[in-house]
Amino acid sequence: MKKNILYAQSGGVTPVINATACGVIETARENNDKIGKVLAGKDGIIGVLKEELIDTTRERKADVAALRHTPGGAFGSCRYKLKSIGESQREYERLIEVLRAHNVGYFFYNGGGDSADTAHKVSQISKKLDFPVQCIGIPKTIDNDLPVTDNCPGFGSVAKYVAVSIMEASLDVESMASSSTKVFIMEVMGRHAGWIAAAGGLAQRDAGDPPHIILFPEVAFNRKTFLARVKQAVETHGYCSIVVSEGVRSANGRFLAEAGTKDAFGHAQLGGAAPVLAEIVQKGLGYKYHWAVLDYLQRSARHLASSTDVDQAYAVGAAAVKFALQGKNGVMPVIKRISNNPYRWKIEEASLGRVANREKKMPKSYITQDGFGITPAARRYLEPLIRGESYPPYDRRGLPRYVRLRKVMVKKVLPEFAV
Amino acid sequence: MKKNILYAQSGGVTPVINATACGVIETARENNDKIGKVLAGKDGIIGVLKEELIDTTRERKADVAALRHTPGGAFGSCRYKLKSIGESQREYERLIEVLRAHNVGYFFYNGGGDSADTAHKVSQISKKLDFPVQCIGIPKTIDNDLPVTDNCPGFGSVAKYVAVSIMEASLDVESMASSSTKVFIMEVMGRHAGWIAAAGGLAQRDAGDPPHIILFPEVAFNRKTFLARVKQAVETHGYCSIVVSEGVRSANGRFLAEAGTKDAFGHAQLGGAAPVLAEIVQKGLGYKYHWAVLDYLQRSARHLASSTDVDQAYAVGAAAVKFALQGKNGVMPVIKRISNNPYRWKIEEASLGRVANREKKMPKSYITQDGFGITPAARRYLEPLIRGESYPPYDRRGLPRYVRLRKVMVKKVLPEFAV
Repeated sequence: MKKNILYAQSGGVTPVINATACGVIETARENNDKIGKVLAGKDGIIGVLKEELIDTTRERKADVAALRHTPGGAFGSCRYKLKSIGESQREYERLIEVLRAHNVGYFFYNGGGDSADTAHKVSQISKKLDFPVQCIGIPKTIDNDLPVTDNCPGFGSVAKYVAVSIMEASLDVESMASSSTKVFIMEVMGRHAGWIAAAGGLAQRDAGDPPHIILFPEVAFNRKTFLARVKQAVETHGYCSIVVSEGVRSANGRFLAEAGTKDAFGHAQLGGAAPVLAEIVQKGLGYKYHWAVLDYLQRSARHLASSTDVDQAYAVGAAAVKFALQGKNGVMPVIKRISNNPYRWKIEEASLGRVANREKKMPKSYITQDGFGITPAARRYLEPLIRGESYPPYDRRGLPRYVRLRKVMVKKVLPEFAV
Repeated sequence: MKKNILYAQSGGVTPVINATACGVIETARENNDKIGKVLAGKDGIIGVLKEELIDTTRERKADVAALRHTPGGAFGSCRYKLKSIGESQREYERLIEVLRAHNVGYFFYNGGGDSADTAHKVSQISKKLDFPVQCIGIPKTIDNDLPVTDNCPGFGSVAKYVAVSIMEASLDVESMASSSTKVFIMEVMGRHAGWIAAAGGLAQRDAGDPPHIILFPEVAFNRKTFLARVKQAVETHGYCSIVVSEGVRSANGRFLAEAGTKDAFGHAQLGGAAPVLAEIVQKGLGYKYHWAVLDYLQRSARHLASSTDVDQAYAVGAAAVKFALQGKNGVMPVIKRISNNPYRWKIEEASLGRVANREKKMPKSYITQDGFGITPAARRYLEPLIRGESYPPYDRRGLPRYVRLRKVMVKKVLPEFAV
């Protein structure tokens, strides 16, 4: 009897996580002689635990195809982390019950390091509970912090959006700097690693091009050095364009963003390094400034995706189905870079144990000695990831045709379960 | 003897002001049997006063063509307003001296209401000083606040970017709202009028679609009503997506943005309504929130321009040259809407006196009774302006091919002049 696939999205969504879902569903449909239905957890693993499963066979072919260009998480996602098997035994058992009740032979978990860990544990416990399930992790994260894989689907599109945005805003600032705003600050995501901030550096074509300063979480913020650099940029170029990671900290480990939000709001949610920096510039140098905070826009801007990224996101989804058909278990399809010039890549297989719970830091060699820019090595790594434009189709009103699925739920057969 | 055109950009730049410059230069080149050179003021009117003029005949044809898809202000701009002729007589006289010294017969000033006023005055004083110059204002402003013209070049592209951005971010928030962020706030420009904020409403296809709340400068902010509406949205849709104009004020006339920036920074530069709202939501309802501030990104995002807007921006530039050839003076090419469905428009002529120093407010009938949304009348007006996609070309590295002009300066012949 054919087994079903259970697919769940996990953690923060990306502009292309639905392209992965598209790859899973389309490839499974092509192989419907060997594979049953693709079911999807509503809002990720929480929906699986609650037995809230979406029957993707009820979605029209054109809607499934449209997932390739639709941002957000089409089936919903969540940040719910299953702990160790000892601590979360009831949840793992429930998971297996749900899989068993719905004839699931393949569990696909589409997320970052935590999800790889969960998929790994489900694979182990399913054997113990005598209901063997092939567990396959599928990589996704804008943070680009998964090990083993050369890069993570989702990151390339965010990188492209960040590079293009700082290039455009810098042209704006440059136009008026002689009599108006001299310092522009754009805040990007990346709490622990500066991958996204580094992508801003791709906007530079020639020496002296903006952004003039990039602030990384990897480099302790020093007010004096920073101000000197701002002054130098304004005196040399007439203005200073800055990309700052939300995760920038002082030498004492305190987030720059917290300095501002604590005063005004009394709590420490990140997002606000830009206004704090603006204050530092204003007090220290008196320049007129402007600042922008991209926040969710950067991870949902499907209107400006990298086609490299879209292709890879689709490919890891398709590969998960192929791995399932090959009988693999406890693995993740990862991206292997074959060459830089021309850029070539392929999908390989990695064991979940190697991927789980490890964070890929940005190499020190990617940050310039002064701490404010990216090196040629960083460029060589980053540039191929933003190549190519993959636009969504637009409707007559001038808006992207993003799809909203029907999300027909599978009938529940198990007792309720509190999550 | 053929006379030259002097073209200057004024005020905040837009994603398409260079498309207007392209229209001016290309049309003048087509008519080089009747028109001399197009000179451009470096950094706008300040460059004109300083006799810093760029010789656009030194720019390559392909580079001029690329202005059509390049954001920022290619020749530089400024926010320098000439006062009345009595108060700024020396400056007006200097202006005429510069025009005379460089054989300028046509002065094109590309800006908003202030610029129309300046062009109008230059036209008057040039007659008095016996050096008659044909003065033509060319409309430009993302704020869409010029009278007479149906809409302003620049606004349509900003509107498209804002509508697409809130649509995308809302899909992201919706994906995770069941267990994570419930309220998302996106801040847009528009200090005096809610045109840009209103554009966010275009993202709605069906009732209940995000954005659920739009906060306009035209509607006094009321904390209680606002919080009730946020709560209702979260309870109905699972999340609340908000577009807020930087110009939102309380009933006492105080900018919402000031409330936050005053505490933290001790000064009142706008840009910061979003974090203040976030604080209000957090304190009042305890929901997890995220916020974004678009700032300059919205007015430089040429990567997502409206093709209607690009076409109109080019057309007003081309029309200025045609008006000049027809001997017109003290006029502005304006956009006249012929029909909504299908959307049709043409360029007409308006006298600068009618355009100068008047602000077009958003009609009351465009805001819903409850003050939190846009009406069908607003939609009918706004929708055609964001139609069509006009993408810049991209290079092999995945970045837009934005042009940087050579900007060869004309030799100065006059004494220095302090601005």
